[in-house]
Amino acid sequence: MVCAYDGTAYFGWQTQPGLPSVQETIERTLADIVKAPRVEIHGSGRTDHGVHARGQVFHCDLATRMSARSLLMALNAGGRLPPDIRVRACAEVGPGFHARFSAVRKEYRYYVWNTRLMPPCRRLYHAHVVRPLDLDAMRAAMARFVGEHDFAAFSANPNRPVASTVRTIHAFEVSRQGSRVAFRVQGNGFLYKMVRSMVGFLLRVGTGLERPEAVSELLAPGNPRTARVPSAPACGLFLWQVWYG
Amino acid sequence: MVCAYDGTAYFGWQTQPGLPSVQETIERTLADIVKAPRVEIHGSGRTDHGVHARGQVFHCDLATRMSARSLLMALNAGGRLPPDIRVRACAEVGPGFHARFSAVRKEYRYYVWNTRLMPPCRRLYHAHVVRPLDLDAMRAAMARFVGEHDFAAFSANPNRPVASTVRTIHAFEVSRQGSRVAFRVQGNGFLYKMVRSMVGFLLRVGTGLERPEAVSELLAPGNPRTARVPSAPACGLFLWQVWYG
Repeated sequence: MVCAYDGTAYFGWQTQPGLPSVQETIERTLADIVKAPRVEIHGSGRTDHGVHARGQVFHCDLATRMSARSLLMALNAGGRLPPDIRVRACAEVGPGFHARFSAVRKEYRYYVWNTRLMPPCRRLYHAHVVRPLDLDAMRAAMARFVGEHDFAAFSANPNRPVASTVRTIHAFEVSRQGSRVAFRVQGNGFLYKMVRSMVGFLLRVGTGLERPEAVSELLAPGNPRTARVPSAPACGLFLWQVWYG
Repeated sequence: MVCAYDGTAYFGWQTQPGLPSVQETIERTLADIVKAPRVEIHGSGRTDHGVHARGQVFHCDLATRMSARSLLMALNAGGRLPPDIRVRACAEVGPGFHARFSAVRKEYRYYVWNTRLMPPCRRLYHAHVVRPLDLDAMRAAMARFVGEHDFAAFSANPNRPVASTVRTIHAFEVSRQGSRVAFRVQGNGFLYKMVRSMVGFLLRVGTGLERPEAVSELLAPGNPRTARVPSAPACGLFLWQVWYG
């Protein structure tokens, strides 16, 4: 299934005891629909508190005779999923499919409102940057992210060790439309807080606080996360799309 | 002062006992800043529960030595106005100025998301229309609104009598960008629920439920409000701009 959500009201994707999460909300609604005591869904990855999604993918094992189409309609029907979560697509897949392990590419987008005042109706879906952003300087920095690198310096949470901190960025673009600055990044995978760390650093480059060349220094093998890499706010981030082989 | 707000959390512009309103929120913040026991502000007009504004105008009498610029900065500073209300401009005006009575023209915009599913991050600022909208049919209907007419049939709330239900619409446009349909209407003034009633009717025209010609029948002098004119939802409406002589 492919779902979209407004992350404002949730403590992230992953179920946490006593806190509203997207995963738990979908699991409960699915269990209701297929009349199962419990349903477990597996997302393509976690998103943090306040992060949004346009194309999060998850899979689950369901014992039901309902068609994928009926399931989709039941999920989005009134009184089922809340309006800040919509399921956009639903399809039957083979037993070899895993939303997380079968993913081969992901795209995130990050939105910034770059003006003196933040318009109230934009505040939940954009980070606010007052100082004018130099897009050319940011592009020079972004070019240095593209390719295979050790992104340890652009990750957070050492309590969650990963087998490897090497990832490949396929494309990284930025564009401006009026006061809105949009980042688009595709890669084969992303470490915890990696997109927000990269964008946080880019916003420093764009406002003249860092040189574009500093990216390469931080990507040098074995470079640990440093205080020089602040995370950009959660509300600007969207998990946009996940690709499978 | 010119202010913008996200109306989602407010029971409209106007102060109502026991309910959060934009007016009361601004009045309390202003009273705090100028250290007055109470400040009364006068808006260019009311907006309903859930309606937004990009350019609401209000005036007030303040006994303060603060400059307009300092006042503006104090209002938007952290911990003062909540982030869903921003004051965009502040200027001293003469005693003859009245935000409501001096207004000569107003613009409202109305946004519709015209697709099968409502994207969660658009839901607070767009009405949702599933059936494809015929923009040409709506334009034919909109042309009939332009000019001076008796809009009694496109107003609500007979408990709030007005001296005259005659208003002049200067311009009425609609455009589509992807799934987003945007209405823009300018007039010398608007009756209670007039914009939402006009848009509500236009959405029926756009989905084939009404003929464009029916607008002229409803605008015939002395025509009362009928059940044929449903209001479009509040969340799609923005008070965009107010002009003064």
